[in-house]
Amino acid sequence: MSTDMQKESGYDAWLHYHRYCKAENLPAWCRVIVIQAADEVLQTAAAELQLGLTSMFGQQPKICTTPVSAPFITLGTFREHSLAAERFSAEEQAEVNAEGYRIRGIEVPEPAHSAFHSKADPQGSYVTVAGQTTKGVLYGVFHLLRYLQGGLDGKLKPATEESLQAPILDVLSNPANPIRMINHWDNMDGSVERGYAGASIFYDNNAFIPNMDRLRDYARLLASVGIQALSINNVNVHDVETKLITAAFLPDVAKVAAIFRAYGIQIYLCINYASPIELGGLITADPLDPGVAEWWQAKAREVYTAVPDLGGFVVKADSENRPGPFSYGRDHADGANMLADALRPYGGRVIWRCFVYDCKQDWRDRKTDRARAAFDHFQPLDGHFRENVILQIKNGPMDFQVREPVSPLFGALEATQVLLEFQITQEYTGQQRHLCYLVPQWKEVLDFDTYAQGKGSTVKRIVSGALYDKSASGSSRRKAGVHEGCGGFQEAQTPPLLKPANYGFAAVSNIGADANWTGHLLAQSNLYGYGRLAWDPELSADEIADEWVRLTFSGQETDDGRADLINSIKQMLLDSWNIYESYTAPLGVGWMVSPGHHYGPDVDGYEYSMWGTYHFADCQGIGVDRTIATGTGYAGQYFPPNADHYESIDTCPDELLLFFHHVPYTHTLHSGQTVIQHIYDTHFEGAERAARLKDTWISLREQLDETMYEQVLERLEHQADHAKEWRDRINTYFYRKSGFADQKNRPIY
Amino acid sequence: MSTDMQKESGYDAWLHYHRYCKAENLPAWCRVIVIQAADEVLQTAAAELQLGLTSMFGQQPKICTTPVSAPFITLGTFREHSLAAERFSAEEQAEVNAEGYRIRGIEVPEPAHSAFHSKADPQGSYVTVAGQTTKGVLYGVFHLLRYLQGGLDGKLKPATEESLQAPILDVLSNPANPIRMINHWDNMDGSVERGYAGASIFYDNNAFIPNMDRLRDYARLLASVGIQALSINNVNVHDVETKLITAAFLPDVAKVAAIFRAYGIQIYLCINYASPIELGGLITADPLDPGVAEWWQAKAREVYTAVPDLGGFVVKADSENRPGPFSYGRDHADGANMLADALRPYGGRVIWRCFVYDCKQDWRDRKTDRARAAFDHFQPLDGHFRENVILQIKNGPMDFQVREPVSPLFGALEATQVLLEFQITQEYTGQQRHLCYLVPQWKEVLDFDTYAQGKGSTVKRIVSGALYDKSASGSSRRKAGVHEGCGGFQEAQTPPLLKPANYGFAAVSNIGADANWTGHLLAQSNLYGYGRLAWDPELSADEIADEWVRLTFSGQETDDGRADLINSIKQMLLDSWNIYESYTAPLGVGWMVSPGHHYGPDVDGYEYSMWGTYHFADCQGIGVDRTIATGTGYAGQYFPPNADHYESIDTCPDELLLFFHHVPYTHTLHSGQTVIQHIYDTHFEGAERAARLKDTWISLREQLDETMYEQVLERLEHQADHAKEWRDRINTYFYRKSGFADQKNRPIY
Repeated sequence: MSTDMQKESGYDAWLHYHRYCKAENLPAWCRVIVIQAADEVLQTAAAELQLGLTSMFGQQPKICTTPVSAPFITLGTFREHSLAAERFSAEEQAEVNAEGYRIRGIEVPEPAHSAFHSKADPQGSYVTVAGQTTKGVLYGVFHLLRYLQGGLDGKLKPATEESLQAPILDVLSNPANPIRMINHWDNMDGSVERGYAGASIFYDNNAFIPNMDRLRDYARLLASVGIQALSINNVNVHDVETKLITAAFLPDVAKVAAIFRAYGIQIYLCINYASPIELGGLITADPLDPGVAEWWQAKAREVYTAVPDLGGFVVKADSENRPGPFSYGRDHADGANMLADALRPYGGRVIWRCFVYDCKQDWRDRKTDRARAAFDHFQPLDGHFRENVILQIKNGPMDFQVREPVSPLFGALEATQVLLEFQITQEYTGQQRHLCYLVPQWKEVLDFDTYAQGKGSTVKRIVSGALYDKSASGSSRRKAGVHEGCGGFQEAQTPPLLKPANYGFAAVSNIGADANWTGHLLAQSNLYGYGRLAWDPELSADEIADEWVRLTFSGQETDDGRADLINSIKQMLLDSWNIYESYTAPLGVGWMVSPGHHYGPDVDGYEYSMWGTYHFADCQGIGVDRTIATGTGYAGQYFPPNADHYESIDTCPDELLLFFHHVPYTHTLHSGQTVIQHIYDTHFEGAERAARLKDTWISLREQLDETMYEQVLERLEHQADHAKEWRDRINTYFYRKSGFADQKNRPIY
Repeated sequence: MSTDMQKESGYDAWLHYHRYCKAENLPAWCRVIVIQAADEVLQTAAAELQLGLTSMFGQQPKICTTPVSAPFITLGTFREHSLAAERFSAEEQAEVNAEGYRIRGIEVPEPAHSAFHSKADPQGSYVTVAGQTTKGVLYGVFHLLRYLQGGLDGKLKPATEESLQAPILDVLSNPANPIRMINHWDNMDGSVERGYAGASIFYDNNAFIPNMDRLRDYARLLASVGIQALSINNVNVHDVETKLITAAFLPDVAKVAAIFRAYGIQIYLCINYASPIELGGLITADPLDPGVAEWWQAKAREVYTAVPDLGGFVVKADSENRPGPFSYGRDHADGANMLADALRPYGGRVIWRCFVYDCKQDWRDRKTDRARAAFDHFQPLDGHFRENVILQIKNGPMDFQVREPVSPLFGALEATQVLLEFQITQEYTGQQRHLCYLVPQWKEVLDFDTYAQGKGSTVKRIVSGALYDKSASGSSRRKAGVHEGCGGFQEAQTPPLLKPANYGFAAVSNIGADANWTGHLLAQSNLYGYGRLAWDPELSADEIADEWVRLTFSGQETDDGRADLINSIKQMLLDSWNIYESYTAPLGVGWMVSPGHHYGPDVDGYEYSMWGTYHFADCQGIGVDRTIATGTGYAGQYFPPNADHYESIDTCPDELLLFFHHVPYTHTLHSGQTVIQHIYDTHFEGAERAARLKDTWISLREQLDETMYEQVLERLEHQADHAKEWRDRINTYFYRKSGFADQKNRPIY
């Protein structure tokens, strides 16, 4: 693909580094990069910096290992690079955690940054990017590139050629979460489960794709937003994928690991719990069987011989027909710990998914409640897991619906490490044919206060480990004038945490072999946003949208139109989740999608299924009674006061009303509207708003590259049409079922 | 497969020829078969007779071409075989049509058969099977074998060893329909569209299956029930199948044709209407374009060079996204006639399907009515088609639902030849996992009086051509003492119709590569029944079931249990359609199945689709208003008095009420029950009756081969469970929607 094609198609995403500075104005400090004797990751950092600067300024900076007399940029760790060490005090260095960084520019104006005096003199003035580790330095380099490209200086224009001469930069940034992971649901036949952006970039025809160039490009995207862990195969491990941990595929796994290692990313493999039977010829996979444990120990030795820094195994067990310890009368702790013991000698982790429920439920049975399942299965096991086991918990109790309450398992595990699982791929949120910027949804989850240990026990503090880390100072380290910051997992004093704790984020990838990675170009914002949020959950949805739009559309704008372009696209993103929610399943009840592929409206699609996903609509009312008093008792899985808020129909928030209560259509919401009229109103308005997304985009036509314009337009046109289909099917369903007319007499069929 | 395995698995179906006579009791006349100088089909007839006799009697009869002094069987045509000619008078011979036969036994008792004196003397006594053609003789041989195996003498036992010595047989049988066709919806990748009995027996991996032995076994089954036409590929002609009419595949087509030719069966190919573009590189497939016509003429020459007796082409055009003449502003007559002209020099036919409707309907649009489509498209074209064009019309206006009215196109075409299309494969009737003997449904269609030319204008007389054949004597030629008879297409005098007219039956096959051909062993009865009915529409569902059960289960019984076995299985068959209907979509409204695969209940599965298949249920009522007065006007497509009967809610039969009318749930049926209570009652009862099918089968366990018992039991158990699912989903749907309680207070959810 030519460079032009890449830019136009969106292949370069937020790393396309639009050139905006004439070569003759190139700032002096951008002509030389001085690095320490480099490991692989630092070499990557230098090369990325060189690439970005070359693209933006039209001249390739030199990379050298000794200081020059002219201004320069220098990269290195405090410990191994004297230029880095001398730029920051011991205290300043100690504030950086294992994967954090500091950046200091040539000048620091008074008085805001009085603590950080520039030590550069005019002859040897330099910009420093430094960290405890070269990974930290790499992340710092991407920060610097974002700054230079996006003009992240609070103005709506990129850094000007003038301001570039003496950059005002003094940054401390630590990732809040030690684990920042992406899960690929890629199958080796080349398909991607719940993939909406083409085929797998890893596999085809039951083998690894021979040309792995694209994996490197993917690693760049991930590292640029701080992702450092990647599981490369579907959690549903089928026959061929079961063999990934055998000699048949380990050499290829090692090749992939090498590509991502250069970008500071550890890979993980999803394993089949029945491997001892399917691969080993044993008659059991019972975790307490000594032969099984030995088999896994030998397997771990083999796997780590091939890939010494493998992150570990991701396991979906006893879930949706996958094998697991239940088959042998064992529990999840038995299952996970046996694997953990096998991986421990190599520093490997077991990431054990909590998506366990009865997927053969009888729809006639109103007592069983899938929402309860994760808590009921795992809360009693709290404290039973090894220290290299991490439980991966989906954000909500069901399955990535457009609206769910937060999983009550967050906060319910005090002595067990957890990962929060989001879904970047838009399985239930429009499948990258509808626009749905998910960061606002994720923010609500992260900011949710579980009250697990009193007020302030937010999900973000639970999943970063901060809530349980008595030595950590708290959730936010943001300081005045410092753009980014925060961090929960760092220890208070040196030495910093070089072996981070096992907490953080995981999320299902939304990328595939489509030229623009995500099918819908604007869906790139979700991958970007996920990475940024995993680094810093304090960032707002607006800030992240702003960054992503600036980086992605830089070079598209005229000077006059840029503010309009950025604000318009940003507003499209920020509105999109609410728009999508408004024309799909109402008031938190979820589902109402076509079974199987999950695309498009089907109100009763899951109503009579075995999946535990019901709305119970009849001619009188709708909703699931999950109260303690008269329902499934799910509300009682929350700490007070959340439990009480959800239990009471008076305090339950409107947007979750039907998740917790079965109410008549005539029930009046806090909004003052009845449930049935709310359904009609939101669906009519939602479809109109979806159409306006398209209109907004059309209004930006002159400012956009044609191919980018066209590819997004096609999706937005589909969305506008499909939103009408949603509107009419949902409204008609409820009109036919309830008999209530729309107060505004709009067409319902 | 060993012979034992075959019998147990059901592979031999109704041709398994159970041995029931000791060799020493072998009747003398069964020891020698005397045939005329034989063509291929007569050789087949002799070989089949030899095979059957050997199997039943344990001794292989000799085949010779000259009479012997002992009793014998002789086979031949009146014209070429003097033994056949001398046994029947000129008048008797003239009563036989092109594919009919006469059989005369050794003795004919007085007085019932006074017209048929035996001409055999004790020394040279013989049984004669004769016809105008060797195909007729072949069908006569299968008749004789049925008689010998099944004891089709009106008693419940097989022909006794005593009665065999001098068989009482004097049969005249003519097929009512000149075309008796099976359509295969087989794809060359080995899949079968709407196939429920395993993979294709014709194709695998985009090629013909190398070992064609099974095709010969299939030809035997078909010929034994009088099938003489077979289309071998799916009417939806995909890329690879488009090439069947090219040198790539014609040699294989010729091989297949040869196999079926030996059994008197002509093969047909389904063609892609866009072939001139896809194969010929033309820029159009416009039927009025001279280049297109020339392309097809050359193609016909090529195809008929490879397969000189190819039956012709079957065409699905302008239907469900298939290409057709509409693309060029032409009509179906233009399209069909152009192909017909190309095939005419070779005696080929064009079978043009009338399954044409708008498959992109907007569900909001209540004016468009898919049921109207076939009539609206084709009735105006009556008389516009060439004489070698046949329109193939599905039995109902929709698509093979468990209950539909008869297509109003039957009788509406006075000057156009037609085929009636049934669906043997149980797409909408339980997919061969539920028992559904379809002959009773087909009988209702055949006996339906269209009143097209006054009373007596039954569908069976329309599709046999009899209604339009002023020279034919009528629909039934059954005579006292003659087991089979009837025939509409034969001419009154000699010479008989050697080139039959283009009328008859077609049906979608239900067979596949499963060992027992049809998945559900009892579903063999539908293939058998279809063939028998195509031969003689006067046969009752009961008679056909009786034949099939005797032939299939002969040898299973003890003497004591045989009557019970036959009656029990026969009753299961006869009840099964009504049972299936009772627990599925009610009162003729149809659909309510899962979209796509069409299996299992989904009341709203097609309610908001583009397929034109709606029930319009709301909280007040249900049904489609197809009246002239207030609805789509579909009822007006029938001749009076049918139109009036359907138009009026008072005279519309209950079982079709919701097909023609939208009524409140409180509407009282002719049965005296309300619609809603009828729904509840039939669904509760239907599920109970389905469970009783299983119980009946279990009661027969001792009399059945174990493998046959087990394979059917597994299906009946599934059916009993699945019928409960249907019951509960349908009942719950309507209870939730209507709010009406069951009068008997049975569990609804």
